[in-house]
Amino acid sequence: MSNLLTIEGVSLSTSSSNSRYGKRDDSLLVVLEEGSIISGKFTKNKFKASPVKVAEEHLKSTSKERRILIVNAGIANAGTGKQGKKDALLCCKEVANIFGLETNSIIPFSTGIIGQFLDTKKQIKAFKDASKKLNPSSWRKAANSILTTDTKPKIISKILKLGKNEIKITGFAKGSGMIRPNFATLLSFVFLDAKISKSLLTEMHEDLLKKSFEVITVDGDTSPNDASLLIATGKSKINVLKNSIEEKKLRRILTQIYKDLASKIIQDAEGSTKRISINILKAKNKSQAKSVAFTVAESPLVKTALFGNDANWGRILAAIGRTKGIENISNVSISLNGVPLVKKGSVDPNLSEVKAAKAVRLKNIDIEIKLGQGNNYFSVLTSDLSEDYVLINSKYRS
Amino acid sequence: MSNLLTIEGVSLSTSSSNSRYGKRDDSLLVVLEEGSIISGKFTKNKFKASPVKVAEEHLKSTSKERRILIVNAGIANAGTGKQGKKDALLCCKEVANIFGLETNSIIPFSTGIIGQFLDTKKQIKAFKDASKKLNPSSWRKAANSILTTDTKPKIISKILKLGKNEIKITGFAKGSGMIRPNFATLLSFVFLDAKISKSLLTEMHEDLLKKSFEVITVDGDTSPNDASLLIATGKSKINVLKNSIEEKKLRRILTQIYKDLASKIIQDAEGSTKRISINILKAKNKSQAKSVAFTVAESPLVKTALFGNDANWGRILAAIGRTKGIENISNVSISLNGVPLVKKGSVDPNLSEVKAAKAVRLKNIDIEIKLGQGNNYFSVLTSDLSEDYVLINSKYRS
Repeated sequence: MSNLLTIEGVSLSTSSSNSRYGKRDDSLLVVLEEGSIISGKFTKNKFKASPVKVAEEHLKSTSKERRILIVNAGIANAGTGKQGKKDALLCCKEVANIFGLETNSIIPFSTGIIGQFLDTKKQIKAFKDASKKLNPSSWRKAANSILTTDTKPKIISKILKLGKNEIKITGFAKGSGMIRPNFATLLSFVFLDAKISKSLLTEMHEDLLKKSFEVITVDGDTSPNDASLLIATGKSKINVLKNSIEEKKLRRILTQIYKDLASKIIQDAEGSTKRISINILKAKNKSQAKSVAFTVAESPLVKTALFGNDANWGRILAAIGRTKGIENISNVSISLNGVPLVKKGSVDPNLSEVKAAKAVRLKNIDIEIKLGQGNNYFSVLTSDLSEDYVLINSKYRS
Repeated sequence: MSNLLTIEGVSLSTSSSNSRYGKRDDSLLVVLEEGSIISGKFTKNKFKASPVKVAEEHLKSTSKERRILIVNAGIANAGTGKQGKKDALLCCKEVANIFGLETNSIIPFSTGIIGQFLDTKKQIKAFKDASKKLNPSSWRKAANSILTTDTKPKIISKILKLGKNEIKITGFAKGSGMIRPNFATLLSFVFLDAKISKSLLTEMHEDLLKKSFEVITVDGDTSPNDASLLIATGKSKINVLKNSIEEKKLRRILTQIYKDLASKIIQDAEGSTKRISINILKAKNKSQAKSVAFTVAESPLVKTALFGNDANWGRILAAIGRTKGIENISNVSISLNGVPLVKKGSVDPNLSEVKAAKAVRLKNIDIEIKLGQGNNYFSVLTSDLSEDYVLINSKYRS
């Protein structure tokens, strides 16, 4: 996190709306110069927040002028009906006026409490204030400004060397609860300076999400505000063409970045004390592997046991056994951080409770589940379920 | 609970194995006289405890001799492989010897920690002790002896008057966590003294479960030990025939009993402070209504909000929106204890936060969700998610 790279064609600024979070900066402007290519992916929850609906519409515009992302944290502007949409559009219009742009060049994002209305007066003032302080290096402020229950910013920069040239990439995300992205977790913004076609960027974006945000879960709850943007400003000398060596290398480094952002979200999951990787192996097919992975990852009993440093394999086995598509558990084996717990569907005869108790105390837990039914696999990253999760979520609106 | 009826043909006794629960009675014998008709339903979890496997086998026996139910609380004898089955069978054999019966006349049940082995010596001694104290009125002791994390026994008696005759019914159950019965929650035993055919009793039993244990959930986790027995001793003068008025009346009273037992389980759910009824109306079909009901009922964010006395309808709407089979939420309306919260998929313009805040403080919460897509309905009973749930389940094995 020490070296955050500027991305040519991107400038940022934050300010405070002086509302839910007091004087903390809660409002973000990101200005993208002309010619940026944007791939946007949004929540598959049928309950969509107003800004998501507006952002989807505005991203359809083929205008070549500058684009501006506007983000507010604290109020999700979801479940707010026609008024909510009007409010989101008003923010876009006012920001467009400042910069002399069309309204549909502004892409709005919100995160926070569902069902409350934006204070548009305060919000627009915040965006106006921000518009006066734009600069290319406010990444850390930007990453902080979008946080809600998160305790840490999630931000990463990487450089891809390609002979004498290079591609610079910087991205940030937020998310801590209501995390079962389908596909993305609110909110993620990744910027690079290469030239790339919209279709290739979109294809890469979809692939990256499948490997990162779509395989994490905190509580199984999908947000109405999920949004992920992958943006190429086209300012570097490198033109990334389909099936080129540059594409291959760029995919590899972007995969690292997306996985890292997803991992940071799990590490900062609400009330979480552990990062848990659930790895399903030897499944009949991918869909069986995925169902088992998410059933185990979202079992409250498995999550509370791990919070309590209890290698309670019985609960893991019970979650596997209730998964749809599982016909029998007689070939199932389970290990935790390398310690064998279950063999052929029952307690492993060589189980060492001492070793298991030691292994489960670690902050990073790798659970390997072999179903013994084929050769497919699927992995999910999740967090434990603590008293703090309950505390945070029983008091969120108060 | 004050008047517990004896059921002719049933005698009971409890004792202590002096293990997990110290001197508390944790072992139960129920002797059923010759001629009892038994309908047994067991967990659909593919991970089945050893006693469940043995009980299923032994219930296939057509022997007319006395049957004995043996139950131990504290150790589930699940995930214990061949040794676990041997242990369950050994208990059956030893109890059979005391009474001069065949081993397969003994039906075993266990509830408690998964993955630990029975101390058969202590357990058999407990059953032997119990065998000396059999009597027809130890219902309350029986209901207490099978509890684990439950804080209260769940027991009920009812009498069905039919002209000069009557049918007496007494039943008890246990269950507090790992509750998403599919079909039953461990454990439920209901006894009546009427004559009835096996096929009619079984058909009634299945129907009763659909209306009671199959529509409750605490944490979505299905147990490997679930078992429900409905037993008719045939000792009363009444012969319940298919399609008779007696059948109709018996069904009605048994439905009350099963619903009451299921409700008692939810009221005593681990760490729970509220009894929450989720009622889905105007669904496209039954399966859509059921999916939405369980998704809302098992959403950690909905459950923690209700624990925090927060009528957070946004989380309810988000859970509806992520349910499989939901295409849009534009006609959804939601009310909580009669207070309207959502109309046409957005905040109800007439929402009174004061009324909502008052309504959500009640111990009994009725959430009504109209999907506006058809005329089907489904209801689920659930509990809230408290810090105590986490505490109980992070320390369960320690």
